Amino acid sequence: MSRFEPKNPDYRAVAIDTFEQQRAMKTLGISIVRLEPGEVDLAMDYRAELTQQHGFIHAGIITAGLDNACGIAAFTLMPDGSDILTVEFKTNLLAPARGQRFAFRATVVKPGRTLTVCEGRAYAEHDGVVEVLIATMSGTLMALPRREGAPLSEGVRVPA
Amino acid sequence: MSRFEPKNPDYRAVAIDTFEQQRAMKTLGISIVRLEPGEVDLAMDYRAELTQQHGFIHAGIITAGLDNACGIAAFTLMPDGSDILTVEFKTNLLAPARGQRFAFRATVVKPGRTLTVCEGRAYAEHDGVVEVLIATMSGTLMALPRREGAPLSEGVRVPA
Amino acid sequence: MSRFEPKNPDYRAVAIDTFEQQRAMKTLGISIVRLEPGEVDLAMDYRAELTQQHGFIHAGIITAGLDNACGIAAFTLMPDGSDILTVEFKTNLLAPARGQRFAFRATVVKPGRTLTVCEGRAYAEHDGVVEVLIATMSGTLMALPRREGAPLSEGVRVPA
Amino acid sequence: MSRFEPKNPDYRAVAIDTFEQQRAMKTLGISIVRLEPGEVDLAMDYRAELTQQHGFIHAGIITAGLDNACGIAAFTLMPDGSDILTVEFKTNLLAPARGQRFAFRATVVKPGRTLTVCEGRAYAEHDGVVEVLIATMSGTLMALPRREGAPLSEGVRVPA
Repeated sequence: MSRFEPKNPDYRAVAIDTFEQQRAMKTLGISIVRLEPGEVDLAMDYRAELTQQHGFIHAGIITAGLDNACGIAAFTLMPDGSDILTVEFKTNLLAPARGQRFAFRATVVKPGRTLTVCEGRAYAEHDGVVEVLIATMSGTLMALPRREGAPLSEGVRVPA
Repeated sequence: MSRFEPKNPDYRAVAIDTFEQQRAMKTLGISIVRLEPGEVDLAMDYRAELTQQHGFIHAGIITAGLDNACGIAAFTLMPDGSDILTVEFKTNLLAPARGQRFAFRATVVKPGRTLTVCEGRAYAEHDGVVEVLIATMSGTLMALPRREGAPLSEGVRVPA
Repeated sequence: MSRFEPKNPDYRAVAIDTFEQQRAMKTLGISIVRLEPGEVDLAMDYRAELTQQHGFIHAGIITAGLDNACGIAAFTLMPDGSDILTVEFKTNLLAPARGQRFAFRATVVKPGRTLTVCEGRAYAEHDGVVEVLIATMSGTLMALPRREGAPLSEGVRVPA
Repeated sequence: MSRFEPKNPDYRAVAIDTFEQQRAMKTLGISIVRLEPGEVDLAMDYRAELTQQHGFIHAGIITAGLDNACGIAAFTLMPDGSDILTVEFKTNLLAPARGQRFAFRATVVKPGRTLTVCEGRAYAEHDGVVEVLIATMSGTLMALPRREGAPLSEGVRVPA
């Protein structure tokens, strides 16, 4: 049970829709595992093509997972018709991203009308059992009114 | 001309070698444009499969480019036989990552025996001309002694 | 010459007024040295009562100076009738805050209607000559409309 | 009960000694309320001379309390003969620092031989009862070997 009350009764559908419009998430193989008001868990399997020089997952990819977990967690608490953008985040890298599977878990610390602050933690799973905390994030997300009539995916013209 | 004096005369070859061992960089299409002691420019073309819900490049991908620029910039000033890891970074996102091409530029602010602090800036290029500052990074990198006899790419066993 | 155009022609008077209403600045002995649109320099003399266990100025005090430099720099670019608050900042501590005098210099990186991003640098001065970079800050400031008729100093009731 | 095992059996005496050598803590009126391995609570009463323009405690002062809580928490887990310094921290400011009393609580997230990562939270107390979360910190602390024979307070020559 989440301690937050969503403003948008359709928060789940809208959050999933936004997530699925992010082609980067599909490219990186990141998917939603759990989604509650103000709380989101994502997961990603190890992929050799996302590694740095030691064969661990690149810090930027771990950050992409954490940022998205924070963004979707914040988004679940925003009113209907909101759009969301990331203002800033800090990532602390605690251990090598070595494992078969990775979890990105985010929780809203302070929801706000304009700004929402979230915290995220990334874990590595070895043999489907052991979990090691590999990174933390603290970030700020911003709610923007969505343009009238524009579905999220058409809100902005993409470069040709 | 850089204001830094590299400790390792082979800094260029070692830095390029480390960069090329990062499969994530190839996957994201990020390459080295300029490399001087303590200063690195990387570049990436727009790719639809790396976008978020508005068709802009995902903040995590921008962060991956900035982190790598900071890491390689710090690495050029480390002594021979060093390995490098990222301790932490903060990214501020200033404008949507909209453009045909992106530049990631990093400079060492303070080199150190153990810790090095870098700053990075990400720019979007439209029509090959206009540049817009889209993100900043400040980060801390750490030098570690490399294991005796181990090439960078075999320093750690990757998960099976 | 600043590269920014202030929206409020009285930016200088309003910024100085806001600074002087901060009793913490007087307590810490921090004063304005230079103030241009989007750029602010503050200074503070060494005071033994602000030190940590090694006799250097405490990191929190250095951060107070940097935060205020960033805040005032951002404030100079906000429209008349704005109030300002700090959203977040990160401080990297590069060298001990050892010296007779300290300078806190901030520049706006990206002004915005709601959010403004600033960077600050703290320097220590020895014998009035040598300057050592001791800390960096990157921070986000937020503009809020000031309450109708309320002077800045009465905007909020202080605790009894 | 803390989940950490201190390496130094005298961790408590050493941590308190280090805290008390910080004259800035006395000047700001900050004191230790609770100290366990890897966990520290500090407290500070409201003082008008530490306020910003709205009569709230200045963000830099809140940061000084959080930084010190993080530093002492990390210090409790370091081996005998260590010295400590702050590498970096980020503060997110969630609500005005309005109240009669403030609590700064820090926990070690990841202890390390060289680097330790901590998280801190600052709360405001109204009427001795209500607690409001006003700020969060995530920070990195570094252990350094103390100079042979030097007590902490004489480890470094202070400016004349």
